[in-house]
Order: sequence, then C-alpha cells, then structure tokens
Amino acid sequence: MKLFLPAQTILLPFPVLIIGTYCSDGKPNIMNAAWGGIASSKPPCISVSLREATLTYHNIKQTEAFTVNIPSEKHFKEADFVGMVSGREYDKFNETRLTPLKSKLVNAPIVKEFPYALECKLIKLVDLGLHTMFIGEIVGMAADSEVLNLNQFPDIEKVRPILWGSYGSMAYYNIGDKLGNAFSAGNELQQR
Amino acid sequence: MKLFLPAQTILLPFPVLIIGTYCSDGKPNIMNAAWGGIASSKPPCISVSLREATLTYHNIKQTEAFTVNIPSEKHFKEADFVGMVSGREYDKFNETRLTPLKSKLVNAPIVKEFPYALECKLIKLVDLGLHTMFIGEIVGMAADSEVLNLNQFPDIEKVRPILWGSYGSMAYYNIGDKLGNAFSAGNELQQR
Repeated sequence: MKLFLPAQTILLPFPVLIIGTYCSDGKPNIMNAAWGGIASSKPPCISVSLREATLTYHNIKQTEAFTVNIPSEKHFKEADFVGMVSGREYDKFNETRLTPLKSKLVNAPIVKEFPYALECKLIKLVDLGLHTMFIGEIVGMAADSEVLNLNQFPDIEKVRPILWGSYGSMAYYNIGDKLGNAFSAGNELQQR
Repeated sequence: MKLFLPAQTILLPFPVLIIGTYCSDGKPNIMNAAWGGIASSKPPCISVSLREATLTYHNIKQTEAFTVNIPSEKHFKEADFVGMVSGREYDKFNETRLTPLKSKLVNAPIVKEFPYALECKLIKLVDLGLHTMFIGEIVGMAADSEVLNLNQFPDIEKVRPILWGSYGSMAYYNIGDKLGNAFSAGNELQQR
C-alpha cells in the first residue's frame, strides 16, 4: 500500500564523505557528511551541505578549499567517530590515529589511510536555510594505486566504500553483490 | 602508494535516482541520474544535476516539479533502461511496464512499483557549466508501507536500493552487510 507522508531527507544509499579542512590555527580537521554529490562534469564539481554550527563550515569559508575523502569499510569506526565530535574539542586525526597529508593542489588535508580523495577549490556557496551548499571545483584526486582499475578510475570493489542507512536503520553497511552491468542490463527490456 | 591524478567525478557509492517529470504534452517520463544529494534539512531540499541535452532538464524548467524515486534491486534492469534511452524516442513507462502515479502535491509522476519517492518543487537553479543543479524543496514522500520502519522512515534493509559503481566498474550493486551502528561504533575509539 502506498502511503503519502510528510517530507523526509532520506536518499538511499547515502555515501560517507569525510571532509578535510584546515582550521585557522593550521590544525587539520575531518568531519563526516552524508549530504553531497557530484554536481557537474565540466568543470568537475562537487557539492557538500553543511550547517553553520560546524567547524568545517567556517574552515572552508576561510581557506576556500576542502577534500572529500572516501573511507573503506575497515575504517567505519573512524568515520563514525569524526561525525560524533567537534574539531573544536578534539584533534580528530590524533584520536583516530589517521594521518593528514597536505594536498599539493588545495589548502586542505587528505586522509592518508583512506583509499582516495577528491581535492576541491570552493567556487560557490548556496544558502538554503539551515544548510549551505559548498560547491567546489574538483582539481585533482589522490588515490592508492591498489584501488584503481586499468584506466585509473577508483574501482568500487577495491575501494569497498561505506554506505549509511540514515534514520531508517541508523547503521553503516558495505557493498553487496554485483547485480549487472550499467548501460547493458537494460537492453533485455528493450528487445522484448 | 598514493598517486596524485587528474580530477575525477567519482563519489562512491553513487545512488540510483530515478527522476520523474511530465513532458509538455503531459506524457510521464523517467530518467536515471546519479549526481544528486540531500541539500538541506530546513527547508528539506534535494539537488539533482542535469545536462541541458536531457528531456528532464526542459520538463522541470517548464513544470517546476519533479520526483526522486528510489528503485529496489529487483528493478535494476528498468533503472538501467531509463538511463539508456531518451523520452523523446521512447515512452519509458510503457517500455518498462512501470506505472506512473500522479503526485498529489507536485506536478510530477511517481513510479508506483518503486519503494518510495520524494516529491519536489523546484526552488533554485545553479548553472555550473555542462550541468545545472536543480534544487527542489521536498514537500512530501510517497512510500510503500512495507519498506517503512516503526517511525515511518524508509528502512534500507527493506528498500534494498541499488548502488552504481561508476566508471571504475560500470556495474550496479546491492547493499551488503551491516557494519555497525552510526553515532555509536565510533565510541570505541573515544574510550581507548
């Protein structure tokens, strides 16, 4: 039975995006964000929505740079931790024993232990209310050679990213089985 | 070994978002988009990035409305098909034997067979180059009662959504195992 219900902000699955920034005193910080996505291919852009209450919001406004790090399933506890506490009270790299690497292209830290990161320069802010969209141009990617396929694209089966189930389950998941090939599986419908 | 590579537009995992719109002649249409995300909680907003070449781009500009339908893994072939062909050449609901239901809140169709859909009113356009972000206020949700938990949130374990692996694998996946609870698993790090 189809129910018609009030608005909800659940888009399944959510990715787990670890946003890297520098604080005004130079300390590297990371936070966990689920609300973001690729926004354009030319120029390559990404958007992440943040509340003004977060330290990351102010860091990006100041540095005009951030990284979007994709954690692997083996780091789900670290990813959860950096979403639970504020960088105003904790040195999150220290607490999680993760290592900040300075990006060569933007003024933001990369998480060394995570499989890959997109390096972003802030190009636009869109205020929507409680959240502001930070739109960054992706200027480079730092990736572990072991997670890339032959064309140097990150391979989801090697990255083993984390999914967040949002309010319906309040849990993290890993990826499951391959269902079929994109731009191919649909052909079966076209030919019947 | 960490490699520093050119920019890429890969954010793993990508969701599979099926965007529902009405054409100027009233025909319902659906397309497959991966580039979108929740953009704000108050007001509840979502963004989807589209190229001007798509029919959906023009439909939303005209109707100022769209739905974001989340398919279940059992419909991955239908989801793939509606991303392979244009609504200018195909009646995609007919071809896939999916059923359009008119939203009561916005001028856009809902896919009856998919577990849930967010009903959206266009509130802002952000031109970024090849893609334009369509930001919609989420005004309601249509969901199958069977996929909701006790608080009426869509439960990822019941929705069984599709993941897209992007260019690294060009394949669809389902969700895997539960890794742990959010806002909880990270406590172990905090107490050591």
